[in-house]
Amino acid sequence: MGTVVTIRQAVMAEDEKYAARVREMLTKRKILAVNIIGSPGCGKTTLLERTAACLGRGGSKKFSFRVIEGDIETARDAERLAAAGVEALQINTKGACHLEAHVIENALKSLDCNGLDVLFIENVGNLVCPAEFDLGEDFKVAVSSVPEGADKPLKYPMLFSQAAAVLLTKVDLLPYVRFDKDLFLRDIRALNPKALIMELDLISDAGLESWLAFIAGRLEEKHHVAQ
Amino acid sequence: MGTVVTIRQAVMAEDEKYAARVREMLTKRKILAVNIIGSPGCGKTTLLERTAACLGRGGSKKFSFRVIEGDIETARDAERLAAAGVEALQINTKGACHLEAHVIENALKSLDCNGLDVLFIENVGNLVCPAEFDLGEDFKVAVSSVPEGADKPLKYPMLFSQAAAVLLTKVDLLPYVRFDKDLFLRDIRALNPKALIMELDLISDAGLESWLAFIAGRLEEKHHVAQ
Repeated sequence: MGTVVTIRQAVMAEDEKYAARVREMLTKRKILAVNIIGSPGCGKTTLLERTAACLGRGGSKKFSFRVIEGDIETARDAERLAAAGVEALQINTKGACHLEAHVIENALKSLDCNGLDVLFIENVGNLVCPAEFDLGEDFKVAVSSVPEGADKPLKYPMLFSQAAAVLLTKVDLLPYVRFDKDLFLRDIRALNPKALIMELDLISDAGLESWLAFIAGRLEEKHHVAQ
Repeated sequence: MGTVVTIRQAVMAEDEKYAARVREMLTKRKILAVNIIGSPGCGKTTLLERTAACLGRGGSKKFSFRVIEGDIETARDAERLAAAGVEALQINTKGACHLEAHVIENALKSLDCNGLDVLFIENVGNLVCPAEFDLGEDFKVAVSSVPEGADKPLKYPMLFSQAAAVLLTKVDLLPYVRFDKDLFLRDIRALNPKALIMELDLISDAGLESWLAFIAGRLEEKHHVAQ
């Protein structure tokens, strides 16, 4: 395991150059980039579908977004997003467990950035490896769903300690599963006192307004800094 | 990504020697080794807790088992198993996303193998990387839970195409989530026609008898071959 970790660190150092270039390019265009990370099936794609639907309904929060979809295989997520009216570019990593910045730099050549406010990068469904790689994003968002259980923050501390926001999804399932919410919140607070924690039910859209306000607020901050 | 994949293949080739030694040692002792792989929170530890409870209640299926627990951090899973009366050795990978055979070889030095029938290895919660590594096991078991969604087999084909058995857990949540079981079954069949598919509800223990019978059957096969 030591070998894998050491080699990975070398790959990461190489990739930092790509990440810096991606960050510079996106900052120049005032595009907010959000790296969304979570387990398989935690609700990452559904979050983006519902984000599109809620923005489409109008309301106080407005921003345009496009998506880079990372999956090992299949174009199912990009197809789901296309059906929701979202322009999404599917990357198939063909076995690799995470996205890397050079892939993002390459993807950006195919993505229309005109008039774009927010780029969501949906990472490969995996709580571990994606947390190790800087893609040039403004910040990472951790998505953790109620049925996964409350013990995930301390078991996967790298992601939870870095994330600017933690989204607890599928709170509609709380009546049907064992989930110690106090433990979950306490463990996140211990790892990452500054993380914003939001509870979401992506069937009724409960909590989604907070998510939209969070993204809109960060976008506004980025515009101020970039000016 | 190409770099990571290439380097990983070299690490895997090195690790195959360890895997062969583990397999030889376990076969000599007629111990069945099962590598359990699934997403974070899919129910791997609960499966082992309920396996212990059901064997403890008596019945037609009897075997002794011990567990090697792989987690990035915390000893929570080994503690849960200890509370269920199961001898479990916790491995903390400290960031690494999967177990490797040299870690198992080392762990076996600390594990009492006398009178042992089955060694369950609970891999790090991750659908991707653990599937790439041979630990010297007899076979892999894939665990996939209903709330993760039915699209996982094709999105994570390496694990599902190798697994001797696929356990669909948390079927008690079927009334509360969208889950296209026909799609799930069809995609597994397309990848892996021979895989045994079992549906489990680990709260009521529904389906657990099939799991025990499967393990007992494979243990018996191993004894016949080893004789």
